[in-house]
Formats: sequence, C-alpha cells, structure tokens
Amino acid sequence: MHFDIITVLPELLSSPLSHSIMQRAKDKDLLTVEIHDLREYGLGKHRSTDDYQFGGGAGMVMRCEPLAAAIDALKAQREYDEIIYLTPDGEQYKQTRANRLSLGKNLLLICGHYKGIDQRIRDEYVTLEISIGDYVLSGGELAAAVLIDSIGRLLPGVLNDETSALTDSFQDDLLAPPIYTRPAEWRGHKVPDILLTGNFPKIEAWREEQAEARTQERRPDLLSKEDGAHG
Amino acid sequence: MHFDIITVLPELLSSPLSHSIMQRAKDKDLLTVEIHDLREYGLGKHRSTDDYQFGGGAGMVMRCEPLAAAIDALKAQREYDEIIYLTPDGEQYKQTRANRLSLGKNLLLICGHYKGIDQRIRDEYVTLEISIGDYVLSGGELAAAVLIDSIGRLLPGVLNDETSALTDSFQDDLLAPPIYTRPAEWRGHKVPDILLTGNFPKIEAWREEQAEARTQERRPDLLSKEDGAHG
Repeated sequence: MHFDIITVLPELLSSPLSHSIMQRAKDKDLLTVEIHDLREYGLGKHRSTDDYQFGGGAGMVMRCEPLAAAIDALKAQREYDEIIYLTPDGEQYKQTRANRLSLGKNLLLICGHYKGIDQRIRDEYVTLEISIGDYVLSGGELAAAVLIDSIGRLLPGVLNDETSALTDSFQDDLLAPPIYTRPAEWRGHKVPDILLTGNFPKIEAWREEQAEARTQERRPDLLSKEDGAHG
Repeated sequence: MHFDIITVLPELLSSPLSHSIMQRAKDKDLLTVEIHDLREYGLGKHRSTDDYQFGGGAGMVMRCEPLAAAIDALKAQREYDEIIYLTPDGEQYKQTRANRLSLGKNLLLICGHYKGIDQRIRDEYVTLEISIGDYVLSGGELAAAVLIDSIGRLLPGVLNDETSALTDSFQDDLLAPPIYTRPAEWRGHKVPDILLTGNFPKIEAWREEQAEARTQERRPDLLSKEDGAHG
C-alpha cells in the first residue's frame, strides 16, 4: 500500500513514520510513504502557500494554486482510491473506515495548517474528508500519522502474531476486556482467579462478559448502534 | 505547563514535539515536555517491560513493576493534575476536555503499546483515561502527541494572533464555515460575493449561517447535545 502526504511541515512527520510498526511495515515492503513539501509548489520567491482570508478574520488560509499543482503532479503518477483532506469538520474516523481504507492501494493525504485550505480545493479534488476526533490540532500532520498507523497495522504481515488486531477494541463494537500479566500478585492486588485456571472456554466467556460490561459502562453508544453508519 | 510522557518508544515522539507550534511554545517557555524511556525501569538485563497475558491470547501486556517505578519516580518530583492513560476504551477526547486540561499545571501521560498495560496500574495510579477516537493505534505515542498539540495551542501566547483558537471548530459546538483566499476567481470558481463586500456584520451573519448549515448536514449530533457530557 502507498501513501502520499502533502504538507508544509514535512519534518514533523519524520519520526512517527520511521519507528516501530511503521518502520517494520516499510522494511517488509508492505507500506510506502512519500512526504511532499507543499513549499516546492509555493508562489513567488518566498514560495508562499497561504494568504489572508477573504472577508477578514483571524487565520491564514492555504491557497488553491500550490495545492492544485501538487495534487495534479501526484495524480499524473498514480491513481488514488481516495484523496483525503484531514479536517475537524470531516467524517468522524472510526475503525470500520480504517478497515475499509486498508483494502485500497494508493491514498493521498492533504494536511491543512492554520485555518485550513481554500474551500475550492475541497470542492474540486477531495473525495473524502476525515476528522480523527472532535478537537482542533495545529495542523493535519498528526492526523495523517494517526491514519497511516491505524491503517498500516491492518495490512497482512505488518503485525507479529502476538499483536493480532482481531481482538482489539472496536473490531466487534466492544471495548477490550481488562488484561493482566505477571506477577500474579502485585502490591496485594491479585489477578482474577479465572485467568489462572487454564480453562480456556471459561476464560473466553469471562472476557466477553468483561468486555460487554465495560462497554455498557463506558460506551453504551457502541452497543446501541444499529444504523451501521459508524464509518 | 509541563508534560511528562512515559513510553517505550521515546524516539517516535521527537519530531512532532519539536516543530511548528510546539517548538514555538517551548521556545517561549510556555510549555515543557519531558519524555521518559520506560526501559530505564525495565526488569533484568534485557530491561523487559512486558510479558504474555494471563489466560492466554495474542498480545503482550506491559508489566506493573516498571510502570510503577517510573510513575513513583515522577510523582516524587511533581504534583500532577491528572495521570492520564491513553487507551481506546477511555473517555472520548473532545475540545471541552482539551480546554479544561489546558488550565492545569502538570500532566503525566502513559503510553501503552501492543495490547496495553496491566489493569492494576490503571486501578492504582491512573486518574483519567482518554481515547482520541474510535480506532486502534499501535501505541499511545501518537495519542499523546495529539493531546499535547491540542492543549499546547490553547495556552495563552502560544498562537500568533492570526491563528486565534476562538473561531475554530468545536469551540461553540459548530463546525467552521468555508474559507477562501486569493485569487477571487480560480479555474472559474469564484469566492462567494458576500466575502468581497467589506460589509463585516453581513459577512459574520453569513459565516454563522454557513457554520450552522454545515454542522446540520455533517454533524447534527453536535447541535442536539443538551447533556453537556461531551467532555
């Protein structure tokens, strides 16, 4: 799978994409990520990429021409499954969307900065707008890193066996049950007896119960979903 | 404001915390971030920090002792407003929570990896569990970076005037209106006339209308919130 990222802060993304699971995915040729500096398409001798907004108000807006030039150049090289703009007013990103995107081949991610990008680029090029949550970040770069991590780990062969994604939270609309490791007693706190019995069918039943109880307590909205619209 | 982060992947966090607004906040002494390598508290000559889970199943679990030692060492130096564990089954992170946390002084962030941390550490130390969204990441590091970015930019003096946080999405439970910058006509697409009139009261009214319409279309859930529980 291949990601292209357009950003004015390419250096911000270097470390999240070159460690741990992301590096392993790259080493195995399961994932390639290319970061494209929007300033290379900037205007004038200052390579400007933004300007004041029409109508006044605080906050710079990223201009159409550099973005269009960058996107056109990339589209000439690849066909994209989606051209994604990361923005707080986009679709709320969920695990089901990550699952679906992980089946694709090429994704283009556009990172906004400051107030965001000119609306006309959204109208003209963007096929999917994604928000990683109901909060504001200083740019789309961390959101892009979140997207690539959540999708990258779903690609077959990226995770080792011991980190199977199938038992994670959200894969079955349940939160994960509590987990414990050695020692069996720590500062007087014991691991639940059931986990030490070796009776795996009972352990699985206990985990299912715990997952449901935790979801009921913390996220009842996940249990009541019937519209299938969460992704 | 000060953040301490406990992680097994300190290097992953280096670039997101040393560029753009985060670097500016650090340069102005408005924000300090210390990253603590959990391996320094690891067990045995391999400095082990995780182990298989009790009851079987895929995925490693982070052990109590190294985490407890790291947290104890940090608590001896500072009083924390919150000890936060970043986990997909935590409270859904929202702008209102970011606003509230930005009023604090010291926050301790614990990043899980693989399956997560032993439940007893959550019971014993953690005062707030936060999820940045309904999807699974390979660790809490990107979530920690998201938290610090969203909180850091709210600290007075961090943002320049032109990036005022007050008109951002979510600050008033509305998505932001569309924004435009020069040129007024690009590839035949014109900026809405109203924005070129210079009539600021009318422009503000138009923006409010657009923000409401966009929220109604994309996120009606934000408008119907009356429980005040979104954060």
